Amino acid sequence: MIIIGEKINATLGPVKPIILERDADGLLKLAREQAEAGANFLDVNVGTGVGSQAEEVEAMKWAVLTIQAEVETPLCLDSADPAVLEAGLKANSRQPCMINSTSGEPEKLAGIVPLAAKYQTMLVGLTMDEAGIPKTVEDRLRAGEKIVAACEKNGVPVKQLLFDPLVLPVSTDITYGLVTLKTIGQLKAAYPEAKTVLGLSNISYGLPARSRLNVAFLHMAIAYGLDAAIIDPLDEELMAAATTGEVLVGRDRHCRRYTRAFRQK
Amino acid sequence: MIIIGEKINATLGPVKPIILERDADGLLKLAREQAEAGANFLDVNVGTGVGSQAEEVEAMKWAVLTIQAEVETPLCLDSADPAVLEAGLKANSRQPCMINSTSGEPEKLAGIVPLAAKYQTMLVGLTMDEAGIPKTVEDRLRAGEKIVAACEKNGVPVKQLLFDPLVLPVSTDITYGLVTLKTIGQLKAAYPEAKTVLGLSNISYGLPARSRLNVAFLHMAIAYGLDAAIIDPLDEELMAAATTGEVLVGRDRHCRRYTRAFRQK
Repeated sequence: MIIIGEKINATLGPVKPIILERDADGLLKLAREQAEAGANFLDVNVGTGVGSQAEEVEAMKWAVLTIQAEVETPLCLDSADPAVLEAGLKANSRQPCMINSTSGEPEKLAGIVPLAAKYQTMLVGLTMDEAGIPKTVEDRLRAGEKIVAACEKNGVPVKQLLFDPLVLPVSTDITYGLVTLKTIGQLKAAYPEAKTVLGLSNISYGLPARSRLNVAFLHMAIAYGLDAAIIDPLDEELMAAATTGEVLVGRDRHCRRYTRAFRQK
Repeated sequence: MIIIGEKINATLGPVKPIILERDADGLLKLAREQAEAGANFLDVNVGTGVGSQAEEVEAMKWAVLTIQAEVETPLCLDSADPAVLEAGLKANSRQPCMINSTSGEPEKLAGIVPLAAKYQTMLVGLTMDEAGIPKTVEDRLRAGEKIVAACEKNGVPVKQLLFDPLVLPVSTDITYGLVTLKTIGQLKAAYPEAKTVLGLSNISYGLPARSRLNVAFLHMAIAYGLDAAIIDPLDEELMAAATTGEVLVGRDRHCRRYTRAFRQK
């Protein structure tokens, strides 16, 4: 399973001043601790919500250069703004690299898919479009089709795509969990070369014992074919859930990773 | 989710003497503690492996009468021998009642399906046949077809059936988990009125931290449509996994059961 560490995100309270004040030590601590905990990619979101586009472009460049001076883990550049993404892509010196994200909206596709082609990156594609997050599996697949069409037109191989079928809280609509799970399964069936990814903690919003729900939903999503998760890699229960889920669906040959992880404990 | 308490099983060391010595207090303790923990059915297996068929017939009759004198929870009569099952069915005074189990083997179908018809019980059908437990989803479905055909011939409604798609340890073959999960999904698609059931602890045989695997596999099986589980209802983690799994697949309206279970803790 591909673990994308979610902690370098300027929309989170404690991270915002690290970005605004160019706190290299603070940034590197977040990068190192996630890398050591087993992250395969580090998400980098410098959107503090204050300042100009030019400042955000500068912040992305600074963050990428600062992290890559010390930490080897590949990056997942996270922005809705193609200019901010391109600043990160120019500064980036590692492969693979990931862009997070486009959606099926024409404007997003036009601005972001060409960057994935130009810099030969992986690309997260949210299965939504200009009408928002679809309620049904079918409409999420239709948004996925638009992303695939744009990738083919721009020369981004489908195997570089990670579909994010999107998670909404079951507390707002009890059908949301199963819609997301079935979307994963149908995306894997329709595009066997593509990967799937979830930022899953949204599932448990508004309910008690959220960690329990997040762990269970990760198990379920792995059972439907989930390849990657955007999570806090320091969350030991979620990381254990990934290891446990993978052995149960045959992705851990001779059960080695599972046995190594849990024999010691 | 239908919880079938597994603890009254004479093949388990501590239970064997309870059956052999007709220890009513011991039997009732097992029945009461499972009922109080939330079991919807109590499995009753009196197969001690010693003594004649006549003695096992007597033991089943004694067990059913003893439990039902004090405990209201319906029973799941568990034997491969139609004579033992019928002794339990005659003694049984509660509805619903469940027979555990037939398989797709002609001899089993001939001996056991007519009992489900005569006593109007629910019936567990193991998706295997005279060749053993099939390796593939397709062959498990074929065994399921044989069970459905026998039920139709004998007048047992498909909605009374609980398919058990069978669980083998992933430590012996890493593909076994996904075969079972996909069999659940395809059985639900082929027979929407039928239910599915698993005795799931076999999945983790031979691996460390078995409870972790059992919990994860229950989450996964619920995501594929599992309706019932044969488990120890005193296992709080497994019972919590059932509650958590059900809210995530939309089977807990307004999240009430989940919220009630976990707000207190």
